[in-house]
Amino acid sequence: MPYVNIKITPTESGVTKQQKSDLIEGVAGVLRDVLGKPESYTTVVIDEVAIENWGSGGKQVTKLVS
Amino acid sequence: MPYVNIKITPTESGVTKQQKSDLIEGVAGVLRDVLGKPESYTTVVIDEVAIENWGSGGKQVTKLVS
Amino acid sequence: MPYVNIKITPTESGVTKQQKSDLIEGVAGVLRDVLGKPESYTTVVIDEVAIENWGSGGKQVTKLVS
Amino acid sequence: MPYVNIKITPTESGVTKQQKSDLIEGVAGVLRDVLGKPESYTTVVIDEVAIENWGSGGKQVTKLVS
Amino acid sequence: MPYVNIKITPTESGVTKQQKSDLIEGVAGVLRDVLGKPESYTTVVIDEVAIENWGSGGKQVTKLVS
Amino acid sequence: MPYVNIKITPTESGVTKQQKSDLIEGVAGVLRDVLGKPESYTTVVIDEVAIENWGSGGKQVTKLVS
Repeated sequence: MPYVNIKITPTESGVTKQQKSDLIEGVAGVLRDVLGKPESYTTVVIDEVAIENWGSGGKQVTKLVS
Repeated sequence: MPYVNIKITPTESGVTKQQKSDLIEGVAGVLRDVLGKPESYTTVVIDEVAIENWGSGGKQVTKLVS
Repeated sequence: MPYVNIKITPTESGVTKQQKSDLIEGVAGVLRDVLGKPESYTTVVIDEVAIENWGSGGKQVTKLVS
Repeated sequence: MPYVNIKITPTESGVTKQQKSDLIEGVAGVLRDVLGKPESYTTVVIDEVAIENWGSGGKQVTKLVS
Repeated sequence: MPYVNIKITPTESGVTKQQKSDLIEGVAGVLRDVLGKPESYTTVVIDEVAIENWGSGGKQVTKLVS
Repeated sequence: MPYVNIKITPTESGVTKQQKSDLIEGVAGVLRDVLGKPESYTTVVIDEVAIENWGSGGKQVTKLVS
């Protein structure tokens, strides 16, 4: 039953549908490996946040990272 | 003072403004009926999430449900 | 696949396990009625928040409502 | 390490990049002043929510405030 | 109508009820100053998170900051 | 800058501090592997939710899974 919310700023090349699928399966795998939660129980929601809406270190983010 | 966040993937026909209003009033009604919270106290925020950003059962959602 | 997070302050008499069950089924029912989402697809997480951790109208809540 | 999520409906004139920066720095300043958390530790994510997705007082919001 | 969620790890001396009140009023003040949102419209929920449940810089937090 | 929130119900034996550390590092590793986000940029917050506060499949959870 785990629920995971991932908030990311896009990378310079954007985040592809395949990368989102890999994030979902990767996180479900971590919950299986660490806690024995069946992958079929895990829900993941990914939020892509515009960098001007993200503050890191108390300052608005002004450029993309990686 | 209840605060409710509803995350949904869109239905095939989209989610209309009227349906969102019905969700808000429906949820406020449940809180009134079950806990006696006045409807005027309830805040609801609806997030529509693209299916490629949603993982269910550990897998990226690939088609809309209902 | 809907995911619903409900944040409430406790009522004076507390929130019982049965009331939480009623909240969960009530909200799943609203999503079924309004959007046709099967109840079996809905996840609900209830957070009970101490009133000193809740600010309403820009002020810390100092007494329980209903 | 504080993490702050701010959900707002847009104002009539929209929310500018500068206003978002001011929100981020303002909130990091409050955490520094009240709890002594270094501003460089604070993360802020701003979500702009369409008014039709926001319910206040148990009703869908129909016009912008301020 | 702004909704703000603040997640903090406790400081060494804990977070007092007064400090929580100051956080709530401080954040409502920032939203008034920056966006003109009346303070009476702002809802704030504070979550206190145990340090073993917080990962910063990809590592579990092991000691309190400030 | 990724921010990840993991909500889990406890396992029968509880969730240990080491398991939480493994979750944090595991998730930061997925973000590094899939999106190239440096692990030092990732924040993770774990919420442990009592099963009576969790609804899965539209019903209150009544027993722990795995």
